[in-house]
Amino acid sequence: MTNVRIFVTYKESVFDPQGETITEAIHSLGYHEVKQVHVGKFFDVEVEGNIEKVKETVAQISEQLLVNFNLETYRYEIMEEA
Amino acid sequence: MTNVRIFVTYKESVFDPQGETITEAIHSLGYHEVKQVHVGKFFDVEVEGNIEKVKETVAQISEQLLVNFNLETYRYEIMEEA
Repeated sequence: MTNVRIFVTYKESVFDPQGETITEAIHSLGYHEVKQVHVGKFFDVEVEGNIEKVKETVAQISEQLLVNFNLETYRYEIMEEA
Repeated sequence: MTNVRIFVTYKESVFDPQGETITEAIHSLGYHEVKQVHVGKFFDVEVEGNIEKVKETVAQISEQLLVNFNLETYRYEIMEEA
């Protein structure tokens, strides 16, 4: 079993309204040392099989389900093999 | 300037309906080797100041704004100091 963390973020060119709003909220709390906030989501997935097959599955579920390629991009990290 | 990634996840004891739904959707696509999915969000923040002050600010904005401690927990990673 392999644990993989898939990170999904907005593409650089896409405006991140949630990040902007949170930055403003942080400033209104007085933390002006915080310069920028970007928001993303991640998926921790447990996948069975050998590592090459795991990577293939991760790419496929990202492309077919988890990522909106119009707005988003992704990368992943192998967290642990057990 | 320090880049910090703050990870927010549901507590272990809290049911993660989004993760369950995504697991089912992945299975319906035929990827039965995916055993479990947990969903989380992350905040990439750029913070000015020395590293001890940065850590303090990260803890404070997490506690005052980013994390709902009834349901969620957080950790963070220092990504880069520049």
